[in-house]
Amino acid sequence: MGTTGDLARYVVETSAEQIPEAIIHEGKRCLINFLSVALYSSRDPSLDILLDVFQQEGSGRHASVLGSGVRTSLQNAALANGYLGHLEDYDDTHFPTVIHPSSPTLPAALALGEQLSASGLEVLAASVLGMEACCRIGMAVHPYHYDEGWHITGTCGVFGSVIAAGRLAGLNTLQMTHGLGTAGTQAAGVREVFGSMTKPFHPGRSAQSGVLAALLAHRGFTSTTTILEGRRGFAAVMSEDSHLERVTDGLGEHWELTMNGLKPYACGVVNHPLIDAMIALRDKPGVTPESVGSISAKVHPLVLELVDRPNPQVGLEGKFSYQHSMAVSLVDGGAFPAQYTDERVKNRIITELRGRIDATIDESLVEDAAEVTVTLRDGRAYTERIEHATGAPENPMTDRQLDDKFRALVGNVLSKARVERLLASLWDLHQVENIGEVVKQMRVTRRHIRE
Amino acid sequence: MGTTGDLARYVVETSAEQIPEAIIHEGKRCLINFLSVALYSSRDPSLDILLDVFQQEGSGRHASVLGSGVRTSLQNAALANGYLGHLEDYDDTHFPTVIHPSSPTLPAALALGEQLSASGLEVLAASVLGMEACCRIGMAVHPYHYDEGWHITGTCGVFGSVIAAGRLAGLNTLQMTHGLGTAGTQAAGVREVFGSMTKPFHPGRSAQSGVLAALLAHRGFTSTTTILEGRRGFAAVMSEDSHLERVTDGLGEHWELTMNGLKPYACGVVNHPLIDAMIALRDKPGVTPESVGSISAKVHPLVLELVDRPNPQVGLEGKFSYQHSMAVSLVDGGAFPAQYTDERVKNRIITELRGRIDATIDESLVEDAAEVTVTLRDGRAYTERIEHATGAPENPMTDRQLDDKFRALVGNVLSKARVERLLASLWDLHQVENIGEVVKQMRVTRRHIRE
Repeated sequence: MGTTGDLARYVVETSAEQIPEAIIHEGKRCLINFLSVALYSSRDPSLDILLDVFQQEGSGRHASVLGSGVRTSLQNAALANGYLGHLEDYDDTHFPTVIHPSSPTLPAALALGEQLSASGLEVLAASVLGMEACCRIGMAVHPYHYDEGWHITGTCGVFGSVIAAGRLAGLNTLQMTHGLGTAGTQAAGVREVFGSMTKPFHPGRSAQSGVLAALLAHRGFTSTTTILEGRRGFAAVMSEDSHLERVTDGLGEHWELTMNGLKPYACGVVNHPLIDAMIALRDKPGVTPESVGSISAKVHPLVLELVDRPNPQVGLEGKFSYQHSMAVSLVDGGAFPAQYTDERVKNRIITELRGRIDATIDESLVEDAAEVTVTLRDGRAYTERIEHATGAPENPMTDRQLDDKFRALVGNVLSKARVERLLASLWDLHQVENIGEVVKQMRVTRRHIRE
Repeated sequence: MGTTGDLARYVVETSAEQIPEAIIHEGKRCLINFLSVALYSSRDPSLDILLDVFQQEGSGRHASVLGSGVRTSLQNAALANGYLGHLEDYDDTHFPTVIHPSSPTLPAALALGEQLSASGLEVLAASVLGMEACCRIGMAVHPYHYDEGWHITGTCGVFGSVIAAGRLAGLNTLQMTHGLGTAGTQAAGVREVFGSMTKPFHPGRSAQSGVLAALLAHRGFTSTTTILEGRRGFAAVMSEDSHLERVTDGLGEHWELTMNGLKPYACGVVNHPLIDAMIALRDKPGVTPESVGSISAKVHPLVLELVDRPNPQVGLEGKFSYQHSMAVSLVDGGAFPAQYTDERVKNRIITELRGRIDATIDESLVEDAAEVTVTLRDGRAYTERIEHATGAPENPMTDRQLDDKFRALVGNVLSKARVERLLASLWDLHQVENIGEVVKQMRVTRRHIRE
């Protein structure tokens, strides 16, 4: 068989038990991270646009839109949930390719899983196999593909989605091969739309495309069996050059998913090592917002280029201010969306602290490194050096940090008790018999926000 | 404004009354042609696959799947009808680009038109503006785009669809600009899938994508305003070179739709001038299958390369046999699907006649030209020379020929009386108050064919 057939066989024939426990655990972390962002984003008024459209265009009651009481068609649920996953640019990132593999893949697994009452372990296996393939196919066309203008999460996302949905639908190898074809020929999404609602629409649309392809393939719909490697297939048409061996080399031994990072903070990544340093320094003896005399940071040049904004006035500006990011994380011990509200950037204690923060360039630092020295009014001084910011593959978020992110984000949508119950179910997902029970836990009444 | 904005303004601001009558008439011809093929194709078992998927995945009862009693979601109706339009490769062709503009565009117009009870004239206006833009955008990226491996009907189809749907949904210029963005970033479809069900899936999917984009834009969903001309937009990413001026130059004066040909015969185009000749010759005095002594044709070299098959055994082979195409059209006076059944290629009269047919290459002939001489047993001989086959822009099908095609194809699905009533409604469409009434005329109970 060729690349497509080999990949199809692998994702069909690999049992959940054959997948390393660490990878199943990583899948769980991706799901918890994805759900934290998607549930948080469900408060955004733009979700109303999607829900209004679903109401007009049709749909049924087969799968849930996260953070709402709405059940709709499989296609539309996948679309909406993929959109929610990427809306805040706060989902995971496969560092080598900048693919966000969760947002196009997990909604497909959730939609099919919910409809078919799949077990938690089946959903996790389908998810990690889909995300793994998505990242590997991205590697095969990287860097040409993104450089040419393709939004790689939109394009490669269809493969993650069809594999996740197709696994759960029970495709055999030949059906999966055809499903990859019908999915791959829907690969789409150009970077021209960045900065608009249509950027997060891309993973949503990819999730939808994969679900549709899997449902069709399951019933014998035919496509090409060589979508990846064919002369007029995905790689040939959508990349100037490609390395197709990366799709299948070492499948089951080497996992690209280990290069997938979760984002701990709700702001641009260049702030991240500085926030890491402040969270460490706030635990030093005597450190309080009032006791701090000055804070000086050594930073990579990009920090001054991108996020030097000493007096932000609104929350969004705070995300692009290293001064605010450092001050607020010293005071609050985190940098979640709650730290980037209009109210928070105007807070007196934080405003005053910002005035005592300064940064200078240190050319020797890598992009995700920083060094921060806090000098207290009493003369004591502490220095914290971060070699790699949290969330990089070299320094992944801990499960505990992920809990904090989940609580901070989902606390906006569910009661504290429900957040804890849901979180416990998710960490226990490999033992859950019916994923539908977990999805049900996320159902809430959502007021139409636009009206 | 740029190319995208200029196009959006034109398609929004042009009233149905400003569109030349001949173009509205052409739109009607496209619709009649599209419906003849789509209704005929609705008997294909592969439609069951789509209908099964719709039933599993959700959908509602908002728009009709042609040739069935099924109403489904707007997205799914657009998908299914676009699929049906292209399934037999018997839809229209814009000669300069090989785009089939009807199959992605008209399903969008029908779905929105049916839901919103739009008038026949509004549907026709939306359709011709969509198809015109689709062809013009194709011209802008032609020939690089198709050469690179893109199925141009799939990719450019999204623009036809979003314009048709968006016109009927009442988008303003800014909304249409964003709608073109959300549609354009869904442009997809590679030629690798040719020869499978996924080829006709492309225009279906484009119809669906455009409908979705229009519904979103109508509610304020944002995208880029420069999808066509942007640095990372459609033309830059999906074509090596482009001529964007072709999108807007002479809009409203020059119509690409006049270069759109309807296909009279249900076989490969190289047979078409030969069939034309046979249909003319059968009216000559004394010509009957039995009276013919020999038939000799002068043909373009492609005929012998592609369709030299003296003894076809099944219907599909008959489509690739000039001998069968010529014999059956002399006997039956047409070359519709009924002339390419297994039974027809085995018919004794036709088989015997095929044995008396011969062709030689004439290098001076253009691709769609041919010359045929029939010599009767009594010595009489007649020669017919075809300069351009029927269906080429230089020699369009007459309305009368289109009636014949419609009757031949739709007669498989509707009773003779209903065919006539429907055909009359369609020719009268510019005066129909509610397109839904016409759509209703196409509703039939369709047995699930796969089971």
